[in-house]
Amino acid sequence: MAQQQRAIRTRRMILEAAAATFDELGYDGASTTEILSRSGLTRGALYHHFPSKEAIAAALVAAQDEALVIPTHTVKLQGVIDLTAEYAFRLQTDSVLRAGVRLTVEQTSFSQPKIAPYQGAANVIGSLLRGAQERGELLPGVRPQEVTEFIVGAFTGIQLLSQVYDNRRDLLHRVSAMWRFLLPGIAVPGLVPHLDTDIERRCAVNARARQDAEAAPGATPEATPEPAAARPAGTGASEPVAAASRRREPVKAD
Amino acid sequence: MAQQQRAIRTRRMILEAAAATFDELGYDGASTTEILSRSGLTRGALYHHFPSKEAIAAALVAAQDEALVIPTHTVKLQGVIDLTAEYAFRLQTDSVLRAGVRLTVEQTSFSQPKIAPYQGAANVIGSLLRGAQERGELLPGVRPQEVTEFIVGAFTGIQLLSQVYDNRRDLLHRVSAMWRFLLPGIAVPGLVPHLDTDIERRCAVNARARQDAEAAPGATPEATPEPAAARPAGTGASEPVAAASRRREPVKAD
Repeated sequence: MAQQQRAIRTRRMILEAAAATFDELGYDGASTTEILSRSGLTRGALYHHFPSKEAIAAALVAAQDEALVIPTHTVKLQGVIDLTAEYAFRLQTDSVLRAGVRLTVEQTSFSQPKIAPYQGAANVIGSLLRGAQERGELLPGVRPQEVTEFIVGAFTGIQLLSQVYDNRRDLLHRVSAMWRFLLPGIAVPGLVPHLDTDIERRCAVNARARQDAEAAPGATPEATPEPAAARPAGTGASEPVAAASRRREPVKAD
Repeated sequence: MAQQQRAIRTRRMILEAAAATFDELGYDGASTTEILSRSGLTRGALYHHFPSKEAIAAALVAAQDEALVIPTHTVKLQGVIDLTAEYAFRLQTDSVLRAGVRLTVEQTSFSQPKIAPYQGAANVIGSLLRGAQERGELLPGVRPQEVTEFIVGAFTGIQLLSQVYDNRRDLLHRVSAMWRFLLPGIAVPGLVPHLDTDIERRCAVNARARQDAEAAPGATPEATPEPAAARPAGTGASEPVAAASRRREPVKAD
């Protein structure tokens, strides 16, 4: 294993151990000793990557931005739907992302500014929605900035409720419902029937494509799956979503 | 002061001191000794009302249901809008309600089942939305249960974002935006223009009416403002909202 790959893997092991520790003991109740014991690494390996518990928490919070896979779909509103779908799917499958979201939502002695992670999502969604407005996808009078803040807030609460009620198993269904209710209030009527809000079906396609890629000859455990941090936005995991979208009828705003 | 009124006031003082203590130190960092010192009460007075810190936290969580003022508006969708408006206004002004919401959203050593407070809101909103469906206010195919869970989730996240960005000062504006975006996706088109989503204006009317009531001759500090817990749902604070609504044009679903 190349040295860089080993470093990425060690860092990921620390983040996963920290995510599990914070989940069980809470941030304030957790210690680097406990995180070390779960990771099976030496204290030297830990301190090579992170000087403190606070630094690990900061990395977990920052990992939320790495999960913002920017879609390349021509229809910008479809791009925002795809972004939330991918993010919801990762929340279901990635304990490191879940830990970052929890550190953001909760008030602990970890005193990072709490706006940054919301702002990361707001920047990406806001940019897509301004594109949607320029392409004539939004209803007149609908302000991209206001819709952006609504989506970020609503998604934050929806994933929280899905966690409490169903350990996030029904999250894709809840995000799909959000879009069905929301689109008539923000999108031009001619576009709404062409937007694909069936997130559960698409994520299933997505997951199968990932499995196929991992099972393909030449795929080695070191090479796939890559950690999310090493995957450039708009490639990798987002490809199956984009491919599934391309198979649909072409859509355009009228 | 009658004995019962004094007991209600003492209980409220404990809850307010606990709300401030949890806010500063977090639930896990707070102690009954610290809560006592902030309330200025004796330990005997505290234990008369609450046997433990856990019991105080449970009362704070339960106070969320007391803030669910069920509106009596004929148009049920207007009732749901009014309910969220009143709840948002109370979040801005009531530290006890804010503490209950935080204990619900965050994962601490306080191990109450976390579904109950969401379920209280879901029951009230669900009942109103089933009424809306019976009255023909909802679009065909829109399921009251699904809309209910969306509103509870979205509201939870929106108040969280408003807290982080603006200490909840912009909460009424954010809730108003939620309704403007959401209504075209759930309400019959003829009803949408008749629904009043200008929550900021109505809450200002509401607040002025409360101030007038407090300044009115005969109002004593003991009698007004009543603690939220002592006020039956559908009366008291909800009256000005209902009165403001009645001054509008009559609306009906078509």
